[in-house]
Order: sequence, then C-alpha cells, then structure tokens
Amino acid sequence: MSRGIRLAVVGATGAVGQETLKILQERDFPISELICLADPREEGTIIEYKGEAHTVRAASPQQFKEADVALFAVGTEVSQHLAPLAVESGCTVIDNSYAFRLVDEVPLVVPEVNPQDIAWHKGIIANPNCSTIIMVVALNPIHQAAHLTRVVVSTYQAVSGAGIAGLGELEEHTRAYFDGQQVVPQVFQHPIAFNLIPHIDSFVEGDYTREEMKLVWETRKILHHPELKVTATAVRVPVFRSHSESINVETESPLTPQQVREILSNSPGVIVQDDPSHNLYPMPLFTANHDEVFVGRIRQDLTCENGIALWVAADQIRKGAATNAVQIAEMVVEHNYY
Amino acid sequence: MSRGIRLAVVGATGAVGQETLKILQERDFPISELICLADPREEGTIIEYKGEAHTVRAASPQQFKEADVALFAVGTEVSQHLAPLAVESGCTVIDNSYAFRLVDEVPLVVPEVNPQDIAWHKGIIANPNCSTIIMVVALNPIHQAAHLTRVVVSTYQAVSGAGIAGLGELEEHTRAYFDGQQVVPQVFQHPIAFNLIPHIDSFVEGDYTREEMKLVWETRKILHHPELKVTATAVRVPVFRSHSESINVETESPLTPQQVREILSNSPGVIVQDDPSHNLYPMPLFTANHDEVFVGRIRQDLTCENGIALWVAADQIRKGAATNAVQIAEMVVEHNYY
Repeated sequence: MSRGIRLAVVGATGAVGQETLKILQERDFPISELICLADPREEGTIIEYKGEAHTVRAASPQQFKEADVALFAVGTEVSQHLAPLAVESGCTVIDNSYAFRLVDEVPLVVPEVNPQDIAWHKGIIANPNCSTIIMVVALNPIHQAAHLTRVVVSTYQAVSGAGIAGLGELEEHTRAYFDGQQVVPQVFQHPIAFNLIPHIDSFVEGDYTREEMKLVWETRKILHHPELKVTATAVRVPVFRSHSESINVETESPLTPQQVREILSNSPGVIVQDDPSHNLYPMPLFTANHDEVFVGRIRQDLTCENGIALWVAADQIRKGAATNAVQIAEMVVEHNYY
Repeated sequence: MSRGIRLAVVGATGAVGQETLKILQERDFPISELICLADPREEGTIIEYKGEAHTVRAASPQQFKEADVALFAVGTEVSQHLAPLAVESGCTVIDNSYAFRLVDEVPLVVPEVNPQDIAWHKGIIANPNCSTIIMVVALNPIHQAAHLTRVVVSTYQAVSGAGIAGLGELEEHTRAYFDGQQVVPQVFQHPIAFNLIPHIDSFVEGDYTREEMKLVWETRKILHHPELKVTATAVRVPVFRSHSESINVETESPLTPQQVREILSNSPGVIVQDDPSHNLYPMPLFTANHDEVFVGRIRQDLTCENGIALWVAADQIRKGAATNAVQIAEMVVEHNYY
C-alpha cells in the first residue's frame, strides 16, 4: 500500500477546493487515494493532481466509506447535511463552512494558535471564518504576551470570499464600468467595481452582520477567551484575493510597538512588514498567493493606555481557508487523529 | 455695479478648483467678478462659467488686489507662500490646504459644526482635511448630545484625494491590469488597482501618517475639544470619488443606536441611510456627486458601555473640499466677514 491516507476533497471545483488541491500538491500531502467530490452538476469534471487525472464524482454519503479524511469546501447547508454522514461512514471531516464552528463538541482550529484542540475532536474539526483566521494569527502572540482585553476591527475583504463567482463579478463589473454598461449584481448586493459594500453575509443581531459576529464569536472560541470584547465592521472591497484588517487592540499589560514587532517576528505564520521609511506595509495585491499573515503599521493606539494599532493582510483563499484546512489535515495525519 | 463680490479661485484647473466652480454655479454664488488663477503653466486655459469664458491667469500677488475673497484650492506650499500675500492685498482667503489649519489665529471651519469661528478670522479661514470634514459632520451631533470621549476610525479613501492625477492613475492602472501590462505608480506609492495602500501623506510621528494625525488634530480644533482621544488608520482604496470611514465612538452619556439615528436625521448636512432589511447603507459609488455626509450601519459598540459604531461615506471633492469651502464663502459674504 502506498504511503498516506485516503483523502476526499468535497467541493473540489470551487475556489477553495481548487486552492486546496494546489496546496496539497505544494506541500506533498501524504495521499494514498484522492477522491474529488462536488455538486452533481460538476460530475465528470476532470481534475489533474500530480500529473494524474481524477474524475469528479457527485458527493454522496457512500463515497466517504472510501476516505479516511475529508476536506469540506462547500456551503453551510451542504456541510450541515453531508458532514455528519461522512463521520458516520468513519471519515474525519475538516469543514470549512460555518455549520459546526460554534458547536461545543467541535474544535475550531487555527494551527498556529490552538493546535491542541485537534486532539479532542469527535469526527468534525471546523475551519474558522477567513477574516477570523487572519486576525487571530496576528493577535494570538500579542494575547500570549500581554492578555487581550478589547479588539476593534474594521475589515477590507476581497471578493474571493464569495468564491469563483465573486472573482468573476469584480472583473465583469469593472469592465462594464469602463464600457459604460449597466451592471446587475448577482453575487453581491450592489455593484462592487470601484465601490465598497459594508455588508457581508446576512444581518443577524443588533444590526450586525453574521460576518461581523463571526469575528466576535469565533475569535473568543479559538483564543479560549470567552470574555474577550470584540466589535467589528466588515466591508467588501474591490480587491481580488487578500483580506485586510485595521485592528485596534487593548491589552492588560503594556507593550510597545517595538515589542509587538519582535513578538510577531518570532511567531509562526506571521511576516512583519513594517518599515514606513521604505513604504513597506502589507498590501492585498502582494500578499495574495502567500500562506502567511502579513502585519504592519504597528503603532501605539493614541486613545488608551495599553493600546496597539495594526494593519493586517493575508490571502483569503489560502490562509483564510484552504491552507488552514490543509494544515489541520497535516496534524490529523501526523498524530493519527483520524 | 452688479450684485456680489469679486471672487478669485486659485487652482481653478485642478480637481477641487473645477468642482468649486461647478458648485459656485449650482448655488448661484453672488459674484460680481470671477478671477480664475492657476499655476503659470495653466495660463491661458479657458474656463466656462455661467456661459461666459474666463481666461486662467497665472496666480501672483498682484491679482489679489482685484478680489474680495479668494478660494485657494492648491497645495500646501503654494498656499503657504501666496495666501499671506493675498491677505496683504486686502483679500479674505479660504484655504483648502494644510498650511494654516493648525495655526491658532486661523479658524478651521465646517459650517455645520463651528460656523461661529468664521467671525474671528484675521484674513485666512482654513478648510479642513477631507476625511476630517466628513467625520466631524457625522460626529458633532453625537458630541452635542452625549459628549464624545474617544474615537477610533479606519478610513477607506478614494483616489480623488490625490486630485485629477489620482483619478487618472486608478483608471490607467485598472486598464493595464486587464491588459496584463506592468504599471509604474506615479501618484501613489504602489499600484492602486485592486489594491489597498495603508499610507496617505507622509509619515510624521509614532509611525502615524500626517493624514491620520490630521484626523486627530483637526477634529479636536473643529469640535473645540482639545482632550478628545482620537486614533486613526488611513487607507487608500480603489474607489474614484467618495471617502468612507468605519468609526467607533465612546460618549460620556449613553445613546442608543435609535437615538443616534434620530439625532443624525435632524442634523444639517447629514443623510441617514440605515435600513439593513433593505440593504440600505452608505456606499461610495452612490454618495459621489452629493454634498451630504451619509451615515449608516449605526450599532451599539459591543466592547464598551457607551459606544456606538457607524459607517460614513461622502464625496471627497465636494463636501470633503469644494462644497465646504463654498459654504464658508457664503457665510463670509452673508455676514460681511471680508
């Protein structure tokens, strides 16, 4: 038998699914058998993996009997339905959707932050929301050093958060704008070219969107810090792949910007890009297609005693989704947690 | 003699200058003589105003002897040099640059906020920074109702802040992106198409940019609130004309989001667009070419007792610059403050 596990990728034709396959190849993930699954409409699509052709099959409970681990890169409703069936079939699921993230018995994991939580999974491990992953990779080292008490975050989120269709709509809308054509938004609520839309996911409570509340709920769970005060404003911007975030944090103990720079420079998955004298700071155009979370513009927050302001950018499809899931899968395999 | 004053527009060929002329016409500003001035390189350019052709002249101290009021829409260095000479020539200057904004003897005015400060001018009245104007129009009514103590703001600033050249660069860079051509940034530090640049104006202190510190210094002066705590992150976004801002405020007295909505609905220069159930909130594409500051996404800040989060957008060239200057000029004329 060849080295590795039998791995299913569910949603293999989507933006995150395709990136997942790319990352599995890049990282030489130990696979003995690759099973590409997707919506029945995608059945028969050919996907190349390490030079071999794989035919996409319609995702169904049956398929999971042949897999050890399944990476789910599909919507919440599909995950809700299919992931428990996969677990019943003996498969360990790493789920990218919102379906199980806040379920008590499901660990919500960012490998740089809370890898220990993988150990107690009961079949499903949840991959957090993209903007949350990016934020906690940057904030956890600060939290470990000085204990976070408050986070105020405003996001600048790329269209890739809405998948391949989102990427297409930004391109189409932009071309239409130049051609003087009217556009009819399909993916987003409003035209996205040369615009900003302060509305991601649906409105849930107190006129916050679910995207904003994910930054509250998921951050608390990942950091094991249920009292952490977080407030967010989530905004869609006309950028293709990387999310950016303007974050103001308060900590129990004081930290200077220089200390934060040093702490982050020695933290896994973080690249500090913070040299104003050379116009160096994270920008979404240049953090796209990377796996790290880039942090810069580190300053004292001028409004409070122990406050730090920072600016973060990272590829939404990679670290915000696919890379994080593959990292979890690597740990699952390494420690035989499946 | 015809009704009105002799008005000079300095920088008449620039983005703000052109918009100023448009707004003067729209508002039927009482002009007996219009004097269009600009850089010597622009001399001879013909500008149409109310159906009449005006020849642009090179701005020089001499010209101001023929004017009662001068609207300066030029860079800080030109204003620094020319505005005092205009005042010496008996002209009242309304200056759009940064040159005099923080000078104690110069009022810094947003007509909806501190019109009373126009009265004590000594020749120069300063027009605030665009992002500051937009923010204080939204925040002053909250301040009057509940006393502001803290402001955390992240901006999403349009390229129009860099003038006609900025508008051109976004268009060019976007077209080049589609054509697969390399771009060399001229106006901005980095490519702006499908990107975000967390760097506006130069870096000044504590690794803050001057644009960010303007939001601190100018807000305090306009609101007559020198102790107000403000911290800002200023980011350039690929949007043409309107600036947007994500703002978290704290107040001494409590206010509910509904109270804030009511207060702002009755405030001059503000339009409340805040109906999540109908996907209604301010967006820069739709606030462009308007004079009002649009406010929405009004919510309780989840991290503090008396906190409110809001999202603001307004046309940077109009209310952020030209309209505000013309409003000041109208008050100067109405009250004979020249």
